[in-house]
Amino acid sequence: MRFGVVLLPVTMATLLLRRQLGFSLHILRSSLSGCRHVSKAAPQAQMDWDYDGPSMKTPVPGPRSQGLLKQLGEIQNVDAINFFCNYEESRGNYLVDVDGNRMLDVYTQISSIPIGYNHPALHKLMADPNNLSTFVNRPALGILPPGSFPDKVTESLLSVAPSGMSRVQTMACGSCSNENAYKAMFIWYRNKERGGSNPSATEEDLSSCMINQSPGCPDLSILSFMGGFHGRTLGCLATTHSKAIHKLDIPSLDWPIAPFPRLQYPLEEYTRENAAEEARCLEEVEDLIVRWRQKGRPVAGIVVEPIQAEGGDNHASPDFFKNLRNIARKHGCAFHVDEVQTGGGCTGKFWAHEYWGLDDPADIVSFSKKMLTGGYYHKDELQADKGYRIFNTWMGDPSKNLFLIEVLNVIRRENLLEEVRRSGKALLQGLYALQEQYPSLLSSARGQGTFCAVDICDDATRTKILLKARDKGVLLGGCGDRSIRFRPALIFKEYHVALFLNIFNDVLAQLK
Amino acid sequence: MRFGVVLLPVTMATLLLRRQLGFSLHILRSSLSGCRHVSKAAPQAQMDWDYDGPSMKTPVPGPRSQGLLKQLGEIQNVDAINFFCNYEESRGNYLVDVDGNRMLDVYTQISSIPIGYNHPALHKLMADPNNLSTFVNRPALGILPPGSFPDKVTESLLSVAPSGMSRVQTMACGSCSNENAYKAMFIWYRNKERGGSNPSATEEDLSSCMINQSPGCPDLSILSFMGGFHGRTLGCLATTHSKAIHKLDIPSLDWPIAPFPRLQYPLEEYTRENAAEEARCLEEVEDLIVRWRQKGRPVAGIVVEPIQAEGGDNHASPDFFKNLRNIARKHGCAFHVDEVQTGGGCTGKFWAHEYWGLDDPADIVSFSKKMLTGGYYHKDELQADKGYRIFNTWMGDPSKNLFLIEVLNVIRRENLLEEVRRSGKALLQGLYALQEQYPSLLSSARGQGTFCAVDICDDATRTKILLKARDKGVLLGGCGDRSIRFRPALIFKEYHVALFLNIFNDVLAQLK
Repeated sequence: MRFGVVLLPVTMATLLLRRQLGFSLHILRSSLSGCRHVSKAAPQAQMDWDYDGPSMKTPVPGPRSQGLLKQLGEIQNVDAINFFCNYEESRGNYLVDVDGNRMLDVYTQISSIPIGYNHPALHKLMADPNNLSTFVNRPALGILPPGSFPDKVTESLLSVAPSGMSRVQTMACGSCSNENAYKAMFIWYRNKERGGSNPSATEEDLSSCMINQSPGCPDLSILSFMGGFHGRTLGCLATTHSKAIHKLDIPSLDWPIAPFPRLQYPLEEYTRENAAEEARCLEEVEDLIVRWRQKGRPVAGIVVEPIQAEGGDNHASPDFFKNLRNIARKHGCAFHVDEVQTGGGCTGKFWAHEYWGLDDPADIVSFSKKMLTGGYYHKDELQADKGYRIFNTWMGDPSKNLFLIEVLNVIRRENLLEEVRRSGKALLQGLYALQEQYPSLLSSARGQGTFCAVDICDDATRTKILLKARDKGVLLGGCGDRSIRFRPALIFKEYHVALFLNIFNDVLAQLK
Repeated sequence: MRFGVVLLPVTMATLLLRRQLGFSLHILRSSLSGCRHVSKAAPQAQMDWDYDGPSMKTPVPGPRSQGLLKQLGEIQNVDAINFFCNYEESRGNYLVDVDGNRMLDVYTQISSIPIGYNHPALHKLMADPNNLSTFVNRPALGILPPGSFPDKVTESLLSVAPSGMSRVQTMACGSCSNENAYKAMFIWYRNKERGGSNPSATEEDLSSCMINQSPGCPDLSILSFMGGFHGRTLGCLATTHSKAIHKLDIPSLDWPIAPFPRLQYPLEEYTRENAAEEARCLEEVEDLIVRWRQKGRPVAGIVVEPIQAEGGDNHASPDFFKNLRNIARKHGCAFHVDEVQTGGGCTGKFWAHEYWGLDDPADIVSFSKKMLTGGYYHKDELQADKGYRIFNTWMGDPSKNLFLIEVLNVIRRENLLEEVRRSGKALLQGLYALQEQYPSLLSSARGQGTFCAVDICDDATRTKILLKARDKGVLLGGCGDRSIRFRPALIFKEYHVALFLNIFNDVLAQLK
């Protein structure tokens, strides 16, 4: 009997009850241990263009990948490369490598593939000759946009704009999105300081900024959180605090860094302890805002992820974020929600911060990855007062908007947010069961939608698990010190969850 | 008789002689003044897919553009938008707007269109079904590149690598290219300080970098030049000093800024004065390096454009750059040549810095725009020592490499570098003649290849000229305080030069 097939009908409440009763799911058995050549029929086949299971032909990286690694190693640092892919043959939830290995992809290019590989809807788009010019002629969007641009932005980005936001600025990638969001907050903050409806810079502002000096380049700051990740360009990097390898040797800015709550999971079992931890962090946030103002580096904006992803899938409660938003308003700081990894539907809502129920919307919401284009939404007052202040040559890429329109059509047509909630529930239930089965290996299973994670006992074991899972045809990614993050595409169905949990169970059984 | 037809056979030497003799080209006559509806047959039609001249149907922006401006204005700041384009109908050197106006494009989307609009070679690429997957499945290149990636990089970027460089890192845009080039220089510099073949960071490095503090985030700097432009993200912006609007209100870093030579043109008439000016600047560079080391912010790298573009098309001599390279080496700083705007053939060589004849190559050469993908070449020792140090989700976009391969094929097949040198010579000769004809309007014509510029008497007149030229069907861009920069595509032929000069002459005649 398949693990998934039994587990899926079990509700979260029943499962929690079982956990409390010390009930252990003895049906978790390894049926595939030691077998490299995994090929299983999925219990259902809802998508006729998807493969029906992993299929491993060689160790990974296989001989072709190894040859290519050597070739590319002459050109670039290849330390971070897993293997080389055959994107032509990849389909749906399955990534195929150049050695013919087919893997269930639960990492999706660092969470950046919304509806799987080679989705027919995207190929259809490419087959339409009306679209070709958009690919061939990349414009300088900020000065000479295509006539279709306002409609395409409305049809794509604005159709999923977070509540309270009707303005959006596209950018090429996540880092550029956050860099420019920070700039928008600095400009907004300084104009507010200047006062008036048409604030103008002084001669001293204009001359001092040319040589990087205040008041033209003011000593303003962005408050970020320990464990946060917002990109790797110098401005973003000053707010990124997830891993030393990202920051080592790069000059930075003296900006305040608040503790992010370190909660205990499952959240509903530790509400009192977690609330105290969140209160402690919020107090520190206010304290930092006051101290940085006193030292002449006022906080122009606060940036935060709804779930700290790269930093280890650290959650906080809606109350935490609501209070944070209030603190930002109270102290005159902009409130920037970075949805680069959480946005686009993977949490079961289109934007993770929709779970908070904010009365007053965020000031800025940035995105990239699964949105295929970078950019940020913002409130009206966060729009720069003049042209060329938020600007670069490309400012995004209209061909990515075309893809996004199709992705959104698929999400709506196939009810994918609901599917994500359903698959996510099954995934989390399965992780709960597994951490009960393997308490020495797994802990702190947590998640929203399919945006789930689990902690591993230590980093070395995590590495073993990731490699063994890959050998069995499941592609996973780590985050934080010792977590595994699950980042499937939005088309990851319950039967993919079952398939994954079966293989994951086999991996854990081998390590027990 | 057409201006261009007479002028083109005139050699530069003859022209200079004429200038010295006070000879003025009386053939420069306005034949089109006051006429909005310009349509002229080009004297030659070498490219059958190009249009044969501008054709203006409405004022610009026309009614459709104005409607779209209003529509987009509800979504974004539109102050910088000129008009909306019909990219489907644009061809070769001609940009067509949504009101049916067809303009000779001498600005090419801020110098980012290499071989004109809708080049047949690029459409052919899109028609090949083998290429579609590359557009549909954007990978996380740093961990899961396509199997074709090493070959495609070799065929595209490495086939035009600057001398001394066999390594290249792709990035999504110009700013990301420079940000990561700076990071590579900082990492290289710190590893050099640590010494040894496998330098390792201390515990203090690793812990302090997480909170933006030294020694982990060291107080290193990049030396840049007044008037330089290297992008608008916070790291790049600390080295950008061209216009206040770029920098106002954005916090910056205390990095040294050297004066860039303010030369007199034509360069060959002021060799002694210009050499003195360059010596003064170089002395200041060395002085700044010493002073910043003394104040605890050593210069890890020097970044410079071969021609300061955004800052006003400011040139310097090969000797200046050779000496600058030597100063960098002497003081242990990396030498970074930013070819984002100058690269890709527009100066008549593929890389503008090839004109310098460096004995020791640059350490880093960054690119974007006409290369269609961002990135940077670098010497072996500038490669980061570990994976994930130079990294982000996308690290470029393989679909742009496909386009670049075709662009390079066209450049080779059609001998476009030679064409650029020929057209550039005609353009510069024409500008010399015009500045002699209109000394109260124009001065300091200068250029390399078609990468030319001329100074206008003042900013207000420049605006008038730009708008009048646009009304007559020629699209131009400004740079610096009062210059016009010419940035045609590589397919801008001598007959396009003639066409442009005729119209430009008409514009000037109206202002005289």
